[in-house]
Amino acid sequence: MGTTITRLIAGFTVMLATSIVAARADALPSWNDGPAKSAIIEFVQAVTDNTGSRYVPPERRIATFDNDGTLWVSHPFYAQLAFAMDRVRGLAPKHPEWKTQQPFKAILEGDREALSKLGEHDLAEIVMDTHAGMSPQQFEAIVQQWLETARHPRFHVRYTDLVYQPMIELLEYLRANGFKTFIVTGGGIEFVRTFAARSYGIQPWQVVGSSIKSKFELVDGKTQLLRLPKIDFINDGPGKAVGINSHIGLPPIAAFGNSDGDIEMLEYTDSGKGAHLAVMVHHDDAKREYTYGCDTKVGRLCKGVELAKQRGWQLISMKNDWARIFAFEK
Amino acid sequence: MGTTITRLIAGFTVMLATSIVAARADALPSWNDGPAKSAIIEFVQAVTDNTGSRYVPPERRIATFDNDGTLWVSHPFYAQLAFAMDRVRGLAPKHPEWKTQQPFKAILEGDREALSKLGEHDLAEIVMDTHAGMSPQQFEAIVQQWLETARHPRFHVRYTDLVYQPMIELLEYLRANGFKTFIVTGGGIEFVRTFAARSYGIQPWQVVGSSIKSKFELVDGKTQLLRLPKIDFINDGPGKAVGINSHIGLPPIAAFGNSDGDIEMLEYTDSGKGAHLAVMVHHDDAKREYTYGCDTKVGRLCKGVELAKQRGWQLISMKNDWARIFAFEK
Repeated sequence: MGTTITRLIAGFTVMLATSIVAARADALPSWNDGPAKSAIIEFVQAVTDNTGSRYVPPERRIATFDNDGTLWVSHPFYAQLAFAMDRVRGLAPKHPEWKTQQPFKAILEGDREALSKLGEHDLAEIVMDTHAGMSPQQFEAIVQQWLETARHPRFHVRYTDLVYQPMIELLEYLRANGFKTFIVTGGGIEFVRTFAARSYGIQPWQVVGSSIKSKFELVDGKTQLLRLPKIDFINDGPGKAVGINSHIGLPPIAAFGNSDGDIEMLEYTDSGKGAHLAVMVHHDDAKREYTYGCDTKVGRLCKGVELAKQRGWQLISMKNDWARIFAFEK
Repeated sequence: MGTTITRLIAGFTVMLATSIVAARADALPSWNDGPAKSAIIEFVQAVTDNTGSRYVPPERRIATFDNDGTLWVSHPFYAQLAFAMDRVRGLAPKHPEWKTQQPFKAILEGDREALSKLGEHDLAEIVMDTHAGMSPQQFEAIVQQWLETARHPRFHVRYTDLVYQPMIELLEYLRANGFKTFIVTGGGIEFVRTFAARSYGIQPWQVVGSSIKSKFELVDGKTQLLRLPKIDFINDGPGKAVGINSHIGLPPIAAFGNSDGDIEMLEYTDSGKGAHLAVMVHHDDAKREYTYGCDTKVGRLCKGVELAKQRGWQLISMKNDWARIFAFEK
């Protein structure tokens, strides 16, 4: 009899919890009901419930997001590579040696086959040679100009129109629940900062990324920072855990990636004692976006799928979990 | 006649402005009325007045603060050096070579004369040898424990009791006016992060500082970050401008330092086009705190005084501008 009552109460609690979930789910209208959405909402409710055992105080609610392939489209190549390619074309007259030197040769010849094989480290090297020799303010102006004019080769819209609407809603939902949201990108920190505030509501100091060195020097009687063609830090793979510690100073309790380069960020997140949520976005929707996994060098997700099963990480199926991918869709 | 009326109106405007200043000055009760306090309040009013020509939107209201000697006491030696000395004493049995090797010899022998000559770079090197070989979490626990037990040699209170009350009020006043407050310290980033939230209301990701390298590795089947005895970055002098760009991504519009190591941070701040405030705290109160300038290696302020005159930086006289220095004073 006591057991029956307990079951009734438990059943009622589940119903109540379900209706609370349904009520709050309005914050994520571009998400289909399913395991990914439920896991996210359940996690947020648990860590914000100060009567529960999984409560996390607001100042520890750190959520980190990879950028390329997690917050916006990264195929057929990284947006920053498209930017660097345009820079290479623009700077080519001053660099005759690039005609025979890879990866510059591939860029100048528009060799998509060769370009599709470049990884984040190759990108970083191209970046070094095309992003230096100016102040951060000058660099920002160049990127802003490019973002206004460049168009994606398949969708024919601005790259900033290719942010994933479900992730924009997720960022806002997390912030509304006291989370601090950070970008932790393999891409260039100053490249991503140019649009992160406008596109994601994430201010420059909450962007962690790969960087080139800079120095502070006197130019024409005025001091300024000058970007140097030297790699400072590659924020990819294990570097993401290092970069998070350096910039944020706390481990994330929620982390979102889409590639094997995000594995260590998710491991760092789920190695803590308290509540945590580790998520990989799976690109399985060739019709609306792209399908890729082990078979690409751009955002390769292979080992990460296996690890997700082993460690209980959530996989987001873009096909099944996202009702809408881009804001411009009906 | 028209001129008289204009003068009357101008006079009334000044009176009105003065009374507004007086009303808002309650936010800074530990500050004496004077040029420093007036300059701060006038600046904050100007950049928050969205009808004025010097308005700055909230997301650009970046204020940076040096830590040692600007937010808390740094004499007779840096608190982190006191911590490192205690670590050296604790670790000495494992390092017999330290008995004859400087600066370790000076620490083990309690040679204050030798210690007083160490600069921030020496400190950084001692730090490398005593702060590594553990995870950031373990390091934090060691520092927390030390902060609880260590006492300042002159004031006989915890180091965290030696934060400057006028600066605590200033941090709060700036945040209440939409500023983001950051620490930009020559000290160790992870050392300062252990108390910055509690003492200053500044979260770990808003602390910029010197750092040692770390790596992400598998230990007993669990991944963790390990602190390495290798200098990563010295956030001092021109390094402060570089560190600000790396961590914050925007130049400050207000910067507060106390030593020649802060000159470049102030130059970076006043090199911008818009409104800015650059301030040096001058230690001129031997009775309540310390008096030092060109004659010390710990927080030396020498060239900075000359530059302050040339460039219109504010000098805070601790003796004249601060009614109270520490919270424990009557």
